[in-house]
Amino acid sequence: MILIGAEKDETYAKTGFGLVQWRSELVAGQFRFPECEIDLGVPDLTVNEAVEQGVKSLVIGVAPIGGVVPDDWWVVISDAVNKGLDIVNGLHIKLNDNPKLVKAANASGSQLIDIRVPPPTLPVGNGKKRSGRRILTVATDCACGKKYTALAMHRTMIASGMKSTFRASGQTGIMIAGEGIPIDAVPADFISGAAELLSPENDSDHWDVIEGQGSLFHPGYAGVSLGLLHGSQPDAFIVCHEANREVISGWEHYSLPSIQECIDLHLQAGKRTNPKIACVGVSINTSGLPNDNRKAYLEKLEDEIGLPCVDPLIDGCDDILDYMRTTYFNR
Amino acid sequence: MILIGAEKDETYAKTGFGLVQWRSELVAGQFRFPECEIDLGVPDLTVNEAVEQGVKSLVIGVAPIGGVVPDDWWVVISDAVNKGLDIVNGLHIKLNDNPKLVKAANASGSQLIDIRVPPPTLPVGNGKKRSGRRILTVATDCACGKKYTALAMHRTMIASGMKSTFRASGQTGIMIAGEGIPIDAVPADFISGAAELLSPENDSDHWDVIEGQGSLFHPGYAGVSLGLLHGSQPDAFIVCHEANREVISGWEHYSLPSIQECIDLHLQAGKRTNPKIACVGVSINTSGLPNDNRKAYLEKLEDEIGLPCVDPLIDGCDDILDYMRTTYFNR
Repeated sequence: MILIGAEKDETYAKTGFGLVQWRSELVAGQFRFPECEIDLGVPDLTVNEAVEQGVKSLVIGVAPIGGVVPDDWWVVISDAVNKGLDIVNGLHIKLNDNPKLVKAANASGSQLIDIRVPPPTLPVGNGKKRSGRRILTVATDCACGKKYTALAMHRTMIASGMKSTFRASGQTGIMIAGEGIPIDAVPADFISGAAELLSPENDSDHWDVIEGQGSLFHPGYAGVSLGLLHGSQPDAFIVCHEANREVISGWEHYSLPSIQECIDLHLQAGKRTNPKIACVGVSINTSGLPNDNRKAYLEKLEDEIGLPCVDPLIDGCDDILDYMRTTYFNR
Repeated sequence: MILIGAEKDETYAKTGFGLVQWRSELVAGQFRFPECEIDLGVPDLTVNEAVEQGVKSLVIGVAPIGGVVPDDWWVVISDAVNKGLDIVNGLHIKLNDNPKLVKAANASGSQLIDIRVPPPTLPVGNGKKRSGRRILTVATDCACGKKYTALAMHRTMIASGMKSTFRASGQTGIMIAGEGIPIDAVPADFISGAAELLSPENDSDHWDVIEGQGSLFHPGYAGVSLGLLHGSQPDAFIVCHEANREVISGWEHYSLPSIQECIDLHLQAGKRTNPKIACVGVSINTSGLPNDNRKAYLEKLEDEIGLPCVDPLIDGCDDILDYMRTTYFNR
């Protein structure tokens, strides 16, 4: 069961939507407060109903505004713990730092699972080339499709018989994949080292598809993005963008870069650790466009950029993989 | 007293040298093992001699290779704790995570002071303009004079009657200044937010002189440097470089950028949060040059770059401040 609380903005419910999109077989329902304005499209459940249906865990599926967990969430979480549900949390705050909750969990036998805990010891990035191939999703902003695109690209590669692993770098990706490193929670000195650890040496024809974080253009998170780019040493990257978004979401005093600017900066910065880095496609979230504009938007963009431009939710990632096969693999 | 251990490379004894340079009045001596090949230029002391002389603390003055504290250090540290000395530690490892040491400190009344602990709650960078002026030291590599240059620039500003505060972002700087934020230990999501906190709003004619970290060109640490650059929103920056260094120290498979490349990349990246950012000078560590080449090197560089180029240890920072007065302050 996924806790959505009183969320009003889909952008902040990425975890909930991601789990429903990619692990729907594991989602029994959602817990929402009456004020909640979003809907994951799964049944509403109370804690008691969840227990009756044999649900095993409550996943916090939304980031609370300001990062502070509201009191009424704690009521629900405590109730779930007392009734034996495991709690899965991907926020920066830690359930295991809450002594009352820990005590209740010990009593009921439920587990408190904090996802956003990096490995206790991490290396500093060494910048040495590793065997195997890597593709990273990057973006003009946060929350515009990096995780979705990486998962879709991974699925496309697997479907075409390639060797590929999805590498999760954020809380939702880790919940979906069952493993990964929360790059944004790593101490700053170890960002690129953690990224190197996340996509270790592999077969020369194996592709790691690495979930990107933040944006090089984001005034809050660019350091995370740069460290992840350097440590991932991607051979290829896909730029993710939401059509019609013109300012940084939540940082409206910052304009978004153009897609071409985004490609150029990633080529420039990425070259430092992989001189052969190349952009192989653009992934557009077209959900904000009128349906009959979608195709024209992507075609116009494709003319401008000279690379496949797709909405992976609608078109899949085959065009990008085809481009890689015909153009990129021969380099 | 400063613990230097068995260090063979001055680069790794930055903390020890920094304290002797900037707080010599507080340094009674150094503790060195017989294999040690460096010398801070202060008396050698044993723990017993230190206690007899009334020394109050043992400062770990060097980063151990590989980040692991060798066993013989622990022997010295434990001995010092048992004899009532406070221990000051700026490494990523925490003295307070060592139960035996904590127990011994409780018994003897000595304090275990871990410097590299960021504030427990940090904001995400908001990218909003703050009042007051800021100057940041940046570099072509680690360990080539960012802290020294910031301290020297701060001293120059104060001497000329300006309002200025040195803002420490690393372990040694924090020990020298008595306050600051260890930017490299902050969770990755909060790098630029921590930098914003480090140089808060101030009088419009007040200059924060901010100690830089790492290098945008460093395969291990560039994320730290970018977050610090974005959060500092510097009006001005000084590029630090060690003459004759051609590869990244300890990452010899990476070449150093030219000084002009370093200026250009910082202008490009820094513009994102401060469109008026400008480079106001170059700080060169000329210690590796023959004495009679020093002047010619700096003059040639000054011709190429068109900005004041100084070795702050020898020339001070007056030329840079003069340049700022005549050129920059009028913008």
